[in-house]
Amino acid sequence: MKELEERILNEGRILEGGILKVDSFLNHQIDPDLISRIGVEFARRFEADNVTKILTIEASGIPAAVATAMALHVPCIYAKKVGAKNVSGDVYLSSVHSYTYDKDYTILVSRPYLSCTDRVLIIDDFLACGAAANGLADIVSQAGSYLCGIGICIEKGFQDGGKDLRERGIKVESLAIVKSIDGDKITLEENN
Amino acid sequence: MKELEERILNEGRILEGGILKVDSFLNHQIDPDLISRIGVEFARRFEADNVTKILTIEASGIPAAVATAMALHVPCIYAKKVGAKNVSGDVYLSSVHSYTYDKDYTILVSRPYLSCTDRVLIIDDFLACGAAANGLADIVSQAGSYLCGIGICIEKGFQDGGKDLRERGIKVESLAIVKSIDGDKITLEENN
Repeated sequence: MKELEERILNEGRILEGGILKVDSFLNHQIDPDLISRIGVEFARRFEADNVTKILTIEASGIPAAVATAMALHVPCIYAKKVGAKNVSGDVYLSSVHSYTYDKDYTILVSRPYLSCTDRVLIIDDFLACGAAANGLADIVSQAGSYLCGIGICIEKGFQDGGKDLRERGIKVESLAIVKSIDGDKITLEENN
Repeated sequence: MKELEERILNEGRILEGGILKVDSFLNHQIDPDLISRIGVEFARRFEADNVTKILTIEASGIPAAVATAMALHVPCIYAKKVGAKNVSGDVYLSSVHSYTYDKDYTILVSRPYLSCTDRVLIIDDFLACGAAANGLADIVSQAGSYLCGIGICIEKGFQDGGKDLRERGIKVESLAIVKSIDGDKITLEENN
């Protein structure tokens, strides 16, 4: 998605350890017109998949997921990280490894919101090793829902998450793929 | 806002301790058409205030805040709860007491995204004691921004948050106000 790619190249910054920071427009601060068009683009790419639910994980996946839900007019669910008191016990649980914090955490989705009749599109802002996407896909599987695919704003193509998911036959659509980060230089895959 | 009030009365559930659960349409699972109209309604109520930024707090405030930002075509910032590694040190910090978990936590906003030229509208899903709203208002104050007001989806009118904020001269617009919760019965204030 050309517009997103240009924003990454123009506004993305590299922190120590090769962390790509896009919090001037995608997370932390969000450009609502860009995020609307991201939602429309995901809707276009998954138009034929008869999606009934969008699934993401709090917090940074929510804007793109809500925008996609608006474009497809289907409900959006965000998985909560464990501990929320006002979610009752009737839940799907999965475990996600955080490479940022080097620890595992639990995510949950209330059972009434995902069932075997649902066709689910997972949306997230980033895909690197695929930890969050795999946790969400595990919840889709527990619910007996059909996984239509995974829509990612920015995939780190130099990490294995996208490759692993595609090798399992899952449709992964990334709006921008970072090929490499070398010092301050970001290189994107072309023709994406 | 009649549509939101009807959803609360029809779908809201009361958990032990009088917690109002609206996670079938407002948080956890989100109805994107409702949340779009919530955004349009906040935009209407703050139309004359020349808002330049929307400010909310992760995670449950994000959908309504993004929808409002879409309607007003201004950026949306969500304050992060402390610990996110990829936010650098140049931040505004404030402390918020969580009554749900009975502990204080720190919220942060990166300084580049709020300045003395900004006119800020705070958006959140719930207002009870006002802890989150006060933390966000504190950050607006630290930035030297002008606080246009606070837009709340559901105010618990039987708690003091809204009253305290209004007594300080802050414009608070709540789309639904819960007057009382008695057993399983939710009573809303009329003509809101």
